[in-house]
Amino acid sequence: MKKLFTVISIFAVSVYPLMAQDTSTAGTNSIGMITGFAAAILALVFAVILARTLLKREEGNAKMIEIASAIREGADAFLNKQYRGIALFVVIVFALLFLLYGSKGGFGIYAPISFITGSITSALSGFIGMKIATRSNARTAWAARDSLNSGLRVAFSSGSIMGMTVVGLGLFMVCVWYELLSAMGASWTEIGEVLFTFGMGASSVALFARVGGGIYTKAADVGADLVGKVEAGIPEDDPRNPATIADNVGDNVGDVAGMGADLFESYVGSIVATIALAAAAFAGTGEKIISAAIAPVALAGLGIIASIVGTFFVRTKEEATQENLLWSLRIGIYVASILVVIFAYLFINNVLGLGTGIFWAVIAGLVAGNVIGYFTEYYTSDTYAPTKEVALSAETGPATVIISGLGLGMKSTLIPVMTVVIATTIAYYASGGSANPAMGLFGIGMAAVGMLSTLGITLSTDAYGPVADNAGGVAEMSKLESHVRERTDALDSLGNTTAATGKGFAIGSAALTALTLLAALSSILTPVMIENNLTFSLTDPRTLGGLFIGAMVPFFFSALTMQAVGKAAMAMVQEVRRQFKEIKGIMEGTAKPDYQRCVAISTDGALKQMITPTLLAIVTPVLVGLLLGPAALMAALAGSLVSGFCMAIMMANAGGAWDNAKKYIERGNHGGKGSEAHKAAVTGDTVGDPFKDTAGPSINILIKLMSMVALVFGSFLTTTYINFFIK
Amino acid sequence: MKKLFTVISIFAVSVYPLMAQDTSTAGTNSIGMITGFAAAILALVFAVILARTLLKREEGNAKMIEIASAIREGADAFLNKQYRGIALFVVIVFALLFLLYGSKGGFGIYAPISFITGSITSALSGFIGMKIATRSNARTAWAARDSLNSGLRVAFSSGSIMGMTVVGLGLFMVCVWYELLSAMGASWTEIGEVLFTFGMGASSVALFARVGGGIYTKAADVGADLVGKVEAGIPEDDPRNPATIADNVGDNVGDVAGMGADLFESYVGSIVATIALAAAAFAGTGEKIISAAIAPVALAGLGIIASIVGTFFVRTKEEATQENLLWSLRIGIYVASILVVIFAYLFINNVLGLGTGIFWAVIAGLVAGNVIGYFTEYYTSDTYAPTKEVALSAETGPATVIISGLGLGMKSTLIPVMTVVIATTIAYYASGGSANPAMGLFGIGMAAVGMLSTLGITLSTDAYGPVADNAGGVAEMSKLESHVRERTDALDSLGNTTAATGKGFAIGSAALTALTLLAALSSILTPVMIENNLTFSLTDPRTLGGLFIGAMVPFFFSALTMQAVGKAAMAMVQEVRRQFKEIKGIMEGTAKPDYQRCVAISTDGALKQMITPTLLAIVTPVLVGLLLGPAALMAALAGSLVSGFCMAIMMANAGGAWDNAKKYIERGNHGGKGSEAHKAAVTGDTVGDPFKDTAGPSINILIKLMSMVALVFGSFLTTTYINFFIK
Repeated sequence: MKKLFTVISIFAVSVYPLMAQDTSTAGTNSIGMITGFAAAILALVFAVILARTLLKREEGNAKMIEIASAIREGADAFLNKQYRGIALFVVIVFALLFLLYGSKGGFGIYAPISFITGSITSALSGFIGMKIATRSNARTAWAARDSLNSGLRVAFSSGSIMGMTVVGLGLFMVCVWYELLSAMGASWTEIGEVLFTFGMGASSVALFARVGGGIYTKAADVGADLVGKVEAGIPEDDPRNPATIADNVGDNVGDVAGMGADLFESYVGSIVATIALAAAAFAGTGEKIISAAIAPVALAGLGIIASIVGTFFVRTKEEATQENLLWSLRIGIYVASILVVIFAYLFINNVLGLGTGIFWAVIAGLVAGNVIGYFTEYYTSDTYAPTKEVALSAETGPATVIISGLGLGMKSTLIPVMTVVIATTIAYYASGGSANPAMGLFGIGMAAVGMLSTLGITLSTDAYGPVADNAGGVAEMSKLESHVRERTDALDSLGNTTAATGKGFAIGSAALTALTLLAALSSILTPVMIENNLTFSLTDPRTLGGLFIGAMVPFFFSALTMQAVGKAAMAMVQEVRRQFKEIKGIMEGTAKPDYQRCVAISTDGALKQMITPTLLAIVTPVLVGLLLGPAALMAALAGSLVSGFCMAIMMANAGGAWDNAKKYIERGNHGGKGSEAHKAAVTGDTVGDPFKDTAGPSINILIKLMSMVALVFGSFLTTTYINFFIK
Repeated sequence: MKKLFTVISIFAVSVYPLMAQDTSTAGTNSIGMITGFAAAILALVFAVILARTLLKREEGNAKMIEIASAIREGADAFLNKQYRGIALFVVIVFALLFLLYGSKGGFGIYAPISFITGSITSALSGFIGMKIATRSNARTAWAARDSLNSGLRVAFSSGSIMGMTVVGLGLFMVCVWYELLSAMGASWTEIGEVLFTFGMGASSVALFARVGGGIYTKAADVGADLVGKVEAGIPEDDPRNPATIADNVGDNVGDVAGMGADLFESYVGSIVATIALAAAAFAGTGEKIISAAIAPVALAGLGIIASIVGTFFVRTKEEATQENLLWSLRIGIYVASILVVIFAYLFINNVLGLGTGIFWAVIAGLVAGNVIGYFTEYYTSDTYAPTKEVALSAETGPATVIISGLGLGMKSTLIPVMTVVIATTIAYYASGGSANPAMGLFGIGMAAVGMLSTLGITLSTDAYGPVADNAGGVAEMSKLESHVRERTDALDSLGNTTAATGKGFAIGSAALTALTLLAALSSILTPVMIENNLTFSLTDPRTLGGLFIGAMVPFFFSALTMQAVGKAAMAMVQEVRRQFKEIKGIMEGTAKPDYQRCVAISTDGALKQMITPTLLAIVTPVLVGLLLGPAALMAALAGSLVSGFCMAIMMANAGGAWDNAKKYIERGNHGGKGSEAHKAAVTGDTVGDPFKDTAGPSINILIKLMSMVALVFGSFLTTTYINFFIK
C-alpha cells in the first residue's frame, strides 16, 4: 500500500519537469486544473485507504471497547445536535442568498447552492475527522502495548485521515465549482461570487463548530478538573469522575472537529480569494488570466502530493526520547515543505509562466508559517525561558502566575506581527506590486496559499494530538499496564507541542487569508466607490468608526466565548458535585457515575452559548456596511484583523505557557505536584483553557468569517448605503 | 475668600452675553484670547489661595507629622531621581530637535525651546500635585477628627489645587506660545510646529511619569500586600510592615503625579491639535481663521471658570451615606458642565460667530466623556451586576475570578467604542464635515476640547482619592480614634468610585485627543503625499503593515510594563521577607522596620523599568515613518489608537472590578474576609493592580505620545522616506 503511494508520488515529482515542456496555453491550463483535481482525489483516496487499514486494527479489550464507544456516542450525539442547529441557520441564510442572488438571474442561482455545499463540506470535514478520531483512541492505546512506534503510527494515521480529508474535500469542491462555472461561460465576477458564498458557507459552519466545540471541551475539562482533581483529589481521566467521558468527548468535538472546520475554511478561503485576485491582476491579458487563476489550485494540488509523500517519513523507534519523537513528526513536514518549494518553482515558473516573483511570494508565505509556528512553540514549550519564567512565578502564588502568563502572551505578539508584515511586503513587491498593485495583492494571495499548501501534513501532526490524549484516557480508565500509559503520555506530550505549532500556524494562515479576502473585497468595492466619489480616508469619521468597531469586536467576542465557558462549566461543576454527593459508592468504585448526564449538560450548554458570538461575526459587517458605508466596512475588517490577530496570539500563547508551566512543575520542579506552586500553576492552566481552546482559536475564524460575509454581501450593502445616504 | 470667587464667577457668567454684543472681528479675538489668559491665571491664583489655606491647617500630632514627612521624603526622593533621569532624555531630544528645526532658521529655533517648556510644565504639574497631596494626607486625617465634611473639604482642596494647576499651567503656556508666535508674525504651520513640540515635551514626560509612578506604586503595593497581608497576616497600612511607607508614597507618585502629567498632556494636546485643525479648516477665510483658532483656547478658559464655580458646590453633612458623598462630588461636576454648555453656546455662537454646529460638537464631546465615565463606574462598582458577578465567581476559586474579570473587561469595551464612534460622527457632521472635511475634523477637535473643558473639577474629584487613601494610612499608622479611620475609609471608598469615573474619562479623552492629533497629522502629510503620488490605500502592504504594527504596540507595551511591575514587586517581596526575618521584634512592635530601604528599592526598580516602554512609544512611529512611509505612519497611529483604546478599557475595568469585588466580599458577602472566596478575590485584585494602575493608564499616554512624535517628526520622516525609497 505504502509502496504504491511512494511510487505514485515519485512519479508525480519526476513527471512535472517533463510536463513543463508543454508550454502551450491550453495545455498549461489543463495541467494546472488536472493537478488540482488529481491531487484532491488522491488525497481522498489516500484517506479512505488509511481509514480502512486503521479500522481493521483491534480496538482492545472489552473494557476499552466500552469506553471508546461511550466517547463515540457522546461525540456523535453532540455533532448530531449541533449540525441540526447549524442546518437551521444554513437554511435561513440560503433563503436570504436566494432572495439576493437568485433574483439577479444568470449564474446568481449558483451562489446560494454553493453556500449549501460549502456548509456541508465544512461540516463533513469536521465530522469525518471526529468519526475517525473516536475510532482511533482505543486503537492507539492498544497498539501502544506493542511499541511506541505502533502507537505513533495509529495516532498519526488518524490525524492524516483528517488532514487529507480536509485538503482533499476543500480542493475538490473548489475545482468542481470553478470548472462547472467556467465551462458554462460564467464571468470572473460570477465565478468569484459563487466561490465566495462557498467560502462563507464553510466559514460560518467553522465558526459554529469552533465556538460550540470549544465551549464544550472546556466546560467539560474545567468541570472535571475543578471537582475531580481539585476537590475530590482523584487523578485525571479517573473513571470515578462523572465528567471524564464528557472531557474525552470534548477533545474530539473541540480539538478535532472544530479545528478541521477551521482549517478547511482557511484553506478554501485563501484559494478562492487568490483566484479572484488573479482575475483582478491579470484582467485583459487573455489566456494568461486563466494560468494565474489556476495557480492557487495547482499549488494546493502540489502541496497535497508533497504532504502525502511527507507522511511516509513519520516513524519512530522504541527508545525514542521526546526530541526523537518530535523530530519524527517534523521530518515529515520538512520533506513536504522542501518538495513544495521544488514543485512550486518548476510549476509556477515553467508550466504557468508566471515568473519567479510569484514563486518568492509562495516561499515568503511558507517560511512565515513556519516562523510563526516556531515562535509559538518557543513561547509555550517548557524547554525555553518564557514558560520556565511562568513556572517560576508560580512560587509566589496564583496572581503572579496570571500576570506573567498574560505578560508572556502580550509580548509574544511582536514576532508574529513582524513576520506577517515582512512576508506580505516581500510577497507584494516580489510579485511586482510596485508597478501594479493588483499583481502585488495576487502575490499576497499566493503567499497565503503557499503557507497552507502543506496543510495536509501539518494538520495531520496537529490532529494527532487529541487522539493521543484520548488514548491515554482510555488506557487509564481501562487500567492497562503502566508502560502503555507511559507511552501514550509520551505521545500526548508531543501532541501538545505540535498543537502549539499548529495553533500558531492556524493563526498565521488566518491572518494571511483574511488579508487576501480584504484585498479581494477592495477590488470589488473600489470601482463602486470611485463611481460614487467615495474615498478611503483615515480621517473620515465613518472609516475611523469602522476601524474602532472592528478592533473592538475580537474583545467583545472573546468575552462572550469566555463567559460562555464559565456558564457551561459552572453547570458541569454543580452536576459533578451532585453526583459525588447523591450517588453513593462512586468514590469506592462500587457505583458507576452517570456519564451521559454530564455529556448532555456540556452539549446543551455549548449549543446554547455558541449562537450569540457567531451571530456577532455575521451581523457586525452587515451593520457597518449598511450604516457607515464601504470604506468603513473595509476598515472594520482591517481593524478586526489586526486586533484579533494580537488577541488570538496572546490567548493561545498565554494558555499554552500556563498549561506547560503546570506540567513542568508536575515533573518535580518548584516543589512538584501538590505544592503551593503547583496549585498556583493549576489556576493559570484553568484560566488558560478557555483562552487557548475556545476564545483564541475562534478569533481566527471570526476575522475570516467577517471578511467572507463582507465579500458576499459587500456589493449589496454598498449599493443600499449609497442609495440611502449618498444619493 | 470663597465669596470673592463666587462673585468673580457670577460676574463672568453674566458678563459674557454682554460681551457677545461686540462682534467686531478684532474685538472677538481679543476677547477669546483674554478669556484664555484670564482663566488660566485665575486657575493658578485660585490654586495658590487654596494651597495657602490648606497649608495653614494643622498636620496633627507628632506621630502623624513623622509619618507624613516619611511619605513626603519618599515621594520627593522618587520624583527628584525620576526627574533627573527624565532631564537627560529631555536634553537629548532637545539636541535632536535643535538639529532638525534650528537649522531651518526662522521660527524653527522655538520648537526645541517649546519642547523644553512642555517637559518642564508637565513635570511641574505632577510635582505640584504630589507636593500638595503629601502635605494633605495627615491634614485630611486630622480634619476628619472634627467631621466628615472637614475631611472631605481638605482632601478635595488638595485635589482642586492639582486640578487647577494642571489646567491653569496648560492653558497659560498654550496662550503664551500662541500669542508670542503670532505677535512675531509666525505662519500657521510654524505656530503648529512649535505647539506640537510643546505637546511632545508634555507627552514624553507624562509617559515617563505614568509608567515610572505606575511601576513604583504597584511594586510597593504588591510587595506590602503579598508579604504583609497574606504571609504575615497583619492589616493594611500596619506600621510593622516595612513596605507600608513605600506603599503610601506610591499613591502619590503614581496616582497623583502620574495622573497629573497624563491629563495635562491630554488637555494641552487637544487644544494645540484643534488650533492646527482650525487653521486647516478656515484657511483663506481671513480674520475668521483667528476666531476659529482661538475657539479651543476660549472654550478651555470658559471651562476653567465653570470648574472653579463647581468646586464651591462640593460639601457634605456628617451623617452622609456613600451615596450622599458621591452626590456631593457629582453636584460640583454637574454645575460645571451645565455652565460650560451655557458659556459655550453663547461664546461659540455669539462671540466667535462659528455657528451652532461647532457648539453641538462640543456638547457631543462633553456628553461622551460623561457616558464613558458612567459606564466605567457601571462596570467597576459593586452596586451593579457585573462586579457582583465577579465576586460570585470567587466562590469557585481564583481561576474563575480571573476569567470573569477578564471577560468583564473585554465586554466593557463595547459601549466606550460606540460612544466615541457616535460622538465623533456627530461632531464631524454637525460642524459641516460632509461639505468640508476639514471643518468636520475641526469639529472633532472641539469635541475633544469640550470633553476636557471641565477637567479642572473632574481632575479635582479624581486626585482627591489618593489623598483620602493616604489619610487612612496615616490614621491607621498613628493609631487615631477608630471613628477617624471610619471617616477616612468612607472618603477613600468614594475615591475609588471617582477614580473609576476619572479613569474612564482619561481614556475617553485620550481617544478623542489622539483622533484629533491624527487628523492634524493627516492635514500636514496629505499635501506631501499628493505631491509625490502616494495614496492612503488599505491594500498597500505598507499601510497594512503600519496598522498591524500599531495595533501590536499596546500589547507589547502592556507586557513590558506588567513584567516591570512583576520584577520590581519581586525585589520588594524579598526585601520585606528579609526584614521580617532579620530585624527581630518587628512583629511585636518593639523594633522599627527599615522603611527607607523599601522606598529605595521601589524607586530604583521603577526608574530602571520605565525606560524601555517609553522608548518603544517614541521609536515605533519614527521607524515606521522612515521605513514604511507616511501612509503607514498614519495607519500605525490609527492601529495603536483602536487596539490601545480597547486594551486600556479592558485593563482599567477588569482591574477596577477585581478591586471592588474583593472589597464587596470583605464587607461580609460570599463568606467575607478570610474565606476561600476572599482569597480568590485577593488574587484577582493583585492581578488587577498592574492592569488598572500601571499598564492601563499608561496606554492612554502611549497612544498620544506616538501621535505627538509623529506630528513633530512627520514631515522630516516623510521627506526622508520619499528621498530614499521613492525618488
